[in-house]
Amino acid sequence: MKIDYLTLFPEMFSGVLQSSILKRAHDLGAFSYQLIDFRDFTTNKHNKVDDYPYGGGAGMVLQPQPIFDAVESITTEGNNPRVILMCPQGETLTQQKAEELAEEDHLIIICGHYEGYDERIRTELITDEISIGDYVLTGGELGAMVVTDSVVRLLPGVLGNEKSAVEDSFSTHLLEHPHYTRPSDFRGHKVPDVLLSGNHQKIDEWRTYESLKRTYERRPELINEEKLSVKEKELFQQVKNEINLASED
Amino acid sequence: MKIDYLTLFPEMFSGVLQSSILKRAHDLGAFSYQLIDFRDFTTNKHNKVDDYPYGGGAGMVLQPQPIFDAVESITTEGNNPRVILMCPQGETLTQQKAEELAEEDHLIIICGHYEGYDERIRTELITDEISIGDYVLTGGELGAMVVTDSVVRLLPGVLGNEKSAVEDSFSTHLLEHPHYTRPSDFRGHKVPDVLLSGNHQKIDEWRTYESLKRTYERRPELINEEKLSVKEKELFQQVKNEINLASED
Repeated sequence: MKIDYLTLFPEMFSGVLQSSILKRAHDLGAFSYQLIDFRDFTTNKHNKVDDYPYGGGAGMVLQPQPIFDAVESITTEGNNPRVILMCPQGETLTQQKAEELAEEDHLIIICGHYEGYDERIRTELITDEISIGDYVLTGGELGAMVVTDSVVRLLPGVLGNEKSAVEDSFSTHLLEHPHYTRPSDFRGHKVPDVLLSGNHQKIDEWRTYESLKRTYERRPELINEEKLSVKEKELFQQVKNEINLASED
Repeated sequence: MKIDYLTLFPEMFSGVLQSSILKRAHDLGAFSYQLIDFRDFTTNKHNKVDDYPYGGGAGMVLQPQPIFDAVESITTEGNNPRVILMCPQGETLTQQKAEELAEEDHLIIICGHYEGYDERIRTELITDEISIGDYVLTGGELGAMVVTDSVVRLLPGVLGNEKSAVEDSFSTHLLEHPHYTRPSDFRGHKVPDVLLSGNHQKIDEWRTYESLKRTYERRPELINEEKLSVKEKELFQQVKNEINLASED
């Protein structure tokens, strides 16, 4: 997969793209990227990329010309990349969206900064608008890095341990159960006995129960009862009984 | 505000912390930070920070000792920082949460990577668990940077133009209206006449209408009808009429 980033702050990406899984994916050849400063595509004397909004108001607006020209410089006939605009008005990123984008060969991600985007960029140039969440960020760069990490780790061969990807929260639609490791007693706080029992059926049951409980307490909307197995349904009923009993006290 | 990051990948932060608004906030003295590699706090021979999970299973689990010791090295009596764990099971970051964190003097943000956290970190050490969204990331570092950007830009004096912060999406609970800037005709795509009219009442009305329309089409759950002004209610009724008429065609 190739990702082209259009940004006025290419230096923001270095630490993230050159570390950890993204570095590994790059070294493996699974992922390549290009950082494009779209200021290089301006045609005006002062290399301005933005201008005042028509109709007045605070803030500046990114002009269409440099962004159209930058995108056109990296697309060729027959190559139809997804052109993604990072913006608060976009579709909220989900694991499903990351999986969909991981099927593509070429992504272009446009990052604004402070400014708004001229609406014609939105209506004429881009295929997807993505927001990473309901909070205000200074620019699209962090969002572009988040999209990159969520997508690139799904590419074949990138994660060493395939199983880890499958067991993550949001892949299974339940939050993870608690984990414990050494020491078994840390400052008086002990690991639950069941995990030291060696009884794998009981351990699995405990983990499923705790996973359902955590999800029910924190994110009940993630539980789709119809998708639960018979055993999970039984454990989920126990979770609800325990929590309702506790709330009656 | 001071933020301490506990991470095994301190180099991931450099590009983001040293650019744009975060650099500005740092130079202004509004924000300082420390990157702490909690591997430096291990007491075992091989500087291992993780170990196999009790009860078996794939993946590794971060041990409590290095993280407890690292946190204790930066807290003193009477100093009660918020200790934030970045994790998929956490409360989803919102603008309201960012505003709440912006009131604090000291944040500690713990970033895991690949591994799970030993549950005793969660139950004994931390005050907040935060997720930036429902997608899987390789580590907590990008989430920590997202929290930082969303919080630090709210600190007094950090944004040059105070008005920009107020007008952003999610601060006003409506998505932004379309923006246009020069040229008024870009490759045949024209700026709406109203924005060139100079009639500020009509421009305001158009913007409110478009903002309501975009929000209704993309994120209807963000609209709280009770909070709309009389004028906004009237425009919102027009939006619904227009969209319902279109869907009947």
